[in-house]
Amino acid sequence: MLAELTAAVAPVDAAATAAALARHDRLAKPPGSLGRLEELGARLAGIAGRCPPPVPHRPVVLVAAGDHGVHAQGISDWPQAVTAAMVHTVTAGRAAVNALARTVGVEVEVVDVGVATPSAQEGGPPAPQAGCHRVRAGTRDLTVGPAMTVAECRAAIDVGAEVARAAVASGADLVALGDLGIGNTTASACLIAALTGAAPEAVTGRGANRDDARVARKIGVVRLALDRHGPDREPLALLASVGGLEHAAHVGMILAAAAARVPVVLDGVITGASALVAVALVPAVRDYLVAGHASAEPGARVALDHLGLRPLLDLDLRLGEGTGAVLAVPLVQAAARTLGEMALLEEVAGPPEG
Amino acid sequence: MLAELTAAVAPVDAAATAAALARHDRLAKPPGSLGRLEELGARLAGIAGRCPPPVPHRPVVLVAAGDHGVHAQGISDWPQAVTAAMVHTVTAGRAAVNALARTVGVEVEVVDVGVATPSAQEGGPPAPQAGCHRVRAGTRDLTVGPAMTVAECRAAIDVGAEVARAAVASGADLVALGDLGIGNTTASACLIAALTGAAPEAVTGRGANRDDARVARKIGVVRLALDRHGPDREPLALLASVGGLEHAAHVGMILAAAAARVPVVLDGVITGASALVAVALVPAVRDYLVAGHASAEPGARVALDHLGLRPLLDLDLRLGEGTGAVLAVPLVQAAARTLGEMALLEEVAGPPEG
Repeated sequence: MLAELTAAVAPVDAAATAAALARHDRLAKPPGSLGRLEELGARLAGIAGRCPPPVPHRPVVLVAAGDHGVHAQGISDWPQAVTAAMVHTVTAGRAAVNALARTVGVEVEVVDVGVATPSAQEGGPPAPQAGCHRVRAGTRDLTVGPAMTVAECRAAIDVGAEVARAAVASGADLVALGDLGIGNTTASACLIAALTGAAPEAVTGRGANRDDARVARKIGVVRLALDRHGPDREPLALLASVGGLEHAAHVGMILAAAAARVPVVLDGVITGASALVAVALVPAVRDYLVAGHASAEPGARVALDHLGLRPLLDLDLRLGEGTGAVLAVPLVQAAARTLGEMALLEEVAGPPEG
Repeated sequence: MLAELTAAVAPVDAAATAAALARHDRLAKPPGSLGRLEELGARLAGIAGRCPPPVPHRPVVLVAAGDHGVHAQGISDWPQAVTAAMVHTVTAGRAAVNALARTVGVEVEVVDVGVATPSAQEGGPPAPQAGCHRVRAGTRDLTVGPAMTVAECRAAIDVGAEVARAAVASGADLVALGDLGIGNTTASACLIAALTGAAPEAVTGRGANRDDARVARKIGVVRLALDRHGPDREPLALLASVGGLEHAAHVGMILAAAAARVPVVLDGVITGASALVAVALVPAVRDYLVAGHASAEPGARVALDHLGLRPLLDLDLRLGEGTGAVLAVPLVQAAARTLGEMALLEEVAGPPEG
């Protein structure tokens, strides 16, 4: 399925991008005065292949959840069971991402691609929308061996692609990405360091921990992972070796959305790591990505810089779940709307006085 | 009416602010991980006087429009009639602010407090919602004499206050501010320089012009205005001397909204100048203000720095109309929702493992 996905991603439409930029200069406002919304609108036109681009009316955030064997190395303040507990909380509509998604009209879909432990709440009736597609119950400890086999990694990519295809088939026209998984900032740091060449210290942060006390231990894990993986940076092998099941699912979501010419809004450090893998596999996919926000996690900025993406929001968020991606959705919608709904300058006023 | 308005603004509720910050530390997320949304939520709790604060469901953007006699000094590429044409365009729902407001569910209300010239479209039937409250047909040329009499200035403040009160009375629970007026970046620069002590060069930008060719002329106007006005910075006299009718209306809107404990979201350099005047009149009003975005106009940042407000968005907008304020509205709503709708950590997981 990966080969098929890879082949299905077409380059964005440069003519539509250029038409959008030209149209912005004719709208009823000083040229350039909508700032970054103008580039964003042009990006959307390129993705859709037409100008003005359609306004996304059915945005969805796909929250991929997985656990990490590297948790055994003491890299988190939190017990692994918190992943399952947060899956339950998001499914019940009571997490941060739900409150933000309700604010801006985004549907939330949880994709359990590899949670390790049942939550305290499980045992009761299954939660209604908890999309369980577990490839395995968490990854293996990446400090001991590969986190996943390549076959497991491909299976998790397929899960993500199938979920995104189903969302698009049922009307979703914008895909925001989110994550849940205790330990996933460590796996993300491994991917980002390997794919950008940045030093482990530059991409490793506090994550969900109270303070920086565990950062040194996390950096040690990243070093060990890079040493073990060696200089070979073939993206699929790297993802299997040091990544998470939720990273793999994101890769499938990104490729499937791009293949359907649907824009993808990234969240923070986890989805940034996933995007690096997706772009390493299929460079054309980069132009379908919108950076929702600048996470306070240092690796997020390294990943976005490497991808050449400038984040829309900068609110010091470091939560994940898709919170920063969801908050950026109205900006994406606004960028499309201005191109489609504003009067032309020539309808409103004469040309500027010389 | 100004004395009454001034007396009606109460300090925000410090206990509710503190309760919101404490509540954020108990929500189902790492403490502090919602970044600036946490401070914003605490601000909203202080404004409302309760925690969690109410979620604004009926936001409105009040777009105050006025013309400027200083236009005669050649400070703009645009003919003065563009103000009236843009009032018509906003009223018809075809300006940038309308496209953005539709995206995020904000009602748009235009308040013509001093447009000078009829638009080309006038002569037809009056546009349905064009709120005409003209105090006079534009200000006088501030390089020749005071832009307004103090009585005219007070009348424009009263217009703003009445419009804001009426909006709140009909259910508005968040007020965003916008502006329309060819020449108003020059008047704003005069107000900002006078009230912050910044040099004219530091607060004067391109405005709606194509390039920086008119900036030197604008700086000359600001210098002349400061010299003529002298070192006396009594805010009402200053506003009458160098401000615009729309600035005065904003002052009334800010004071009336704050008196009703309704948060006010600022836009760019025009509303920033208005906010400086309002805070100079009533210092307690500052805590009711939210800085929507960092305009690309240099005076906007000077004004916000002086007010101690950090903008939520930074998208290189320099359009006005309330565009940046409107885009920030979902962030304000999201900040309130997280406080009211998220699960507590103790409901989801045990305490961190030490």
